[in-house]
Parts: sequence; C-alpha cells; structure tokens
Amino acid sequence: MHVLIFAGGSVQPGSRVNAALAQADLIIAADSGAATALDYGYRPAIVVGDFDSLAAPLVQQLQLDGCQFIRHPVEKDETDTELALEIAISHGATRITLLGALGGTRFDHMLANIFLLLAYPHLPVRIIDGSACCWLLTGPDQNTITGAVGDILSLLPIAGSASGVRTEGLYYPLHEETLAGGRPRGVSNVLIQENALVYCTQGQLLLIHTEQRKNIS
Amino acid sequence: MHVLIFAGGSVQPGSRVNAALAQADLIIAADSGAATALDYGYRPAIVVGDFDSLAAPLVQQLQLDGCQFIRHPVEKDETDTELALEIAISHGATRITLLGALGGTRFDHMLANIFLLLAYPHLPVRIIDGSACCWLLTGPDQNTITGAVGDILSLLPIAGSASGVRTEGLYYPLHEETLAGGRPRGVSNVLIQENALVYCTQGQLLLIHTEQRKNIS
Repeated sequence: MHVLIFAGGSVQPGSRVNAALAQADLIIAADSGAATALDYGYRPAIVVGDFDSLAAPLVQQLQLDGCQFIRHPVEKDETDTELALEIAISHGATRITLLGALGGTRFDHMLANIFLLLAYPHLPVRIIDGSACCWLLTGPDQNTITGAVGDILSLLPIAGSASGVRTEGLYYPLHEETLAGGRPRGVSNVLIQENALVYCTQGQLLLIHTEQRKNIS
Repeated sequence: MHVLIFAGGSVQPGSRVNAALAQADLIIAADSGAATALDYGYRPAIVVGDFDSLAAPLVQQLQLDGCQFIRHPVEKDETDTELALEIAISHGATRITLLGALGGTRFDHMLANIFLLLAYPHLPVRIIDGSACCWLLTGPDQNTITGAVGDILSLLPIAGSASGVRTEGLYYPLHEETLAGGRPRGVSNVLIQENALVYCTQGQLLLIHTEQRKNIS
C-alpha cells in the first residue's frame, strides 16, 4: 500500500508530485499539511498533530467531511511528520511518499525530515519536491535509478562513511570506493543511461535524483 | 583569523549576517558567491571555482580590482564551497563563517554544505542564514549558546547517534541522554535563559539556533 504524507512545508509542483498523488492509496497530513493537500485538490483521510498551525474553520470542515483527526500534545518527543510516518506504518504501508518535507519550512525541520529516513531503513520512503526525489540506500543493497540521460544524481553518505560504492551508467563512475562522511565527492553525478545503478556494501547513502539536465562533455 | 565564505546560494538578510560581515578578516567567494558578495557591498579577496556560473564582465571587473582568482576544472571531486574552505584554512583561518550555503541552491548542494561541517570537526565553522545559525558539536565537548529567552535551539545527531547529551537552560532538558540518529527528538527545544549549555560525550550534534520566539507555557 502506497501512503502519501503531506508534511508541514510547501510543495513545489512537478510531474513527480502529480504521479505520486495519482498513485496514493491513503493520504495522511501532518498538521498544516492538510491545508496544502486541499490546495492540491486532495482531502487527507487522516490528519495528525497538535493542530497548532491549522485554522479552526478548516478543522471543522475536514471533520464534517469524515477526515479522522489524531491529536497529540504540543509538548511531545516526535515531530508531526514522524507521527504521520508511524500511522502510515500502522495502516500497512509498504511504500511511503513524503511531500512538503523540504520547502517553506524551518531549516531544522527540513533537516529533521531528511534524517527521518534513517529511522526507516527497510521501508521505501521517498521525499519528493519539484524535480527532486531523494531516498536512502542502506548497504548491502543496490538501487536502479530510472531517468533521462543528463539527469543529476547525487550520492551523499548520511551516517558516517559509505563503503564499497559501485555505480553503473553514471558519468563519474565509482568502483567499490568509500565515500567519506562530510566530503561531498558524490554530489552532481550525471546519468549517462536511462537506467543507472548504485550499489553500496556498507553504510547509508542518501540518493538525490534531480530531473535537470547537466551538460556533460 | 575570521574568514567569511560566500557559497553559491542566496543569502537571507539578517543581523547575524551583518555582524559576521563586519567581523571578517578575509572574504572568499565560491564561484557565483562573488556576485552575492558584491550585492552585499563586499569585494571578495579570493574567488575559487570553475567560474561556470559567473558572468565574464564581472570576472574582468573583479580581476581589475585586484581580486585573486583560483581556477579549478569543472570536473573535480570537490565542490566550490569545499575548495573555499581549504583555501581559508591555508590562509590560517581560526574561525569560518559560511553564507549562501542554505538558500536558493539545489537541495543536494545545500545538504552537501551542511555535511561539510563533519569534515572540519576541530575548526569553528558556522553556517549563517537569516535568523538561523548552525554548527557542529563534536563530543566530548560542550557549547554555550547565547541568545534571547524563547529562541529555538534544535539538536540533531548528524552522524549516527549522539550520547551523553546534557543541557542547561533549555525548556526540554536532557540528562546524559542518547539522541538516536534519524529521530528528531531534539528539534525545537527552547532557550529559557540567555546562556544555555549543551554537552555531548560522544557523537556529532548539529546545533541550529534560530532567533525566533517560540511560546512556551
């Protein structure tokens, strides 16, 4: 089951956003993400949070429409996005897409949303915004990246170093190499085939695929 | 020596940005950061990069003004910001401020700029943008955070878990606790004193101090 979560940030439009919405089996909103969902023409089935950032008339309308509200106290250990992810899992999610996790939100919230991927290493969770899609590759594993020749693919070790990194179909190939934590060597690689492959033996790589042509010589 | 680096992104104005600029002993620009520096009324002493994103007339004017250009090939392992940091260190930097590292840049670049902090754990490098300032606390160490009561302070473990985290002067106190990597429990803490303290025994915490009042009960 594909669960789509509207986090509290703004959503940059794009074909990827539309495709994810069209394939959603269940939509959950984290607090003010409910307003963003409605802006996109979708009514969330569940809204979770402390509702400190949702207008009261909107809450009333959503309740009348049958939307389920799961209220948590303002003072809690979890962020609203994290609560939404837990609810998605309790509903049997096998695939999760996060929208509104990157833009128009406080910088620390945005980072927290990205680091949240580390908490779910064995569940396909993708963050989509505009032309960018990012997800976690936890070694030992491999991912096939499907896109257009010229698309940018960045590989960022997100929890220390990542070792045994091997790629196919990228302009700057890696051959069983270590990407050191902190060093942005894996940024701005480029697809030279429509199907590229990234393999990692150990560690956790954040893969960021941007549908943006980069000129390669 | 305090070195200020203009990375390639936009700079959100703020009193912190102005204070950092006023205290700079040397200004380095990473490629298009030179244009941003000029917008702020500062001419960089050094510009580094492949100059793929700087207009030719601007390059000529800066050269006439005595600015030093350090050219690197487009196809390189390092980002322009990383090269600027290395130059800052070679010039004897004891403190570095990064501007333009967070905004108006590609999402993967922004993340790479933040992870770069991990590559310099023993040098005070701060990223400033608008009302936010972020830096790395590498255990065992402690930092005093000076601000106003109500300021937001987020603590994010950035390379796995951080253990032995203890705080003073924060609304949600931590007592020798472990912040697990991926879990955003440390987000949105609040200063209840003008001088707060964060101590960490082991691991690496990204501290994000935002001058934004949060209501606490």
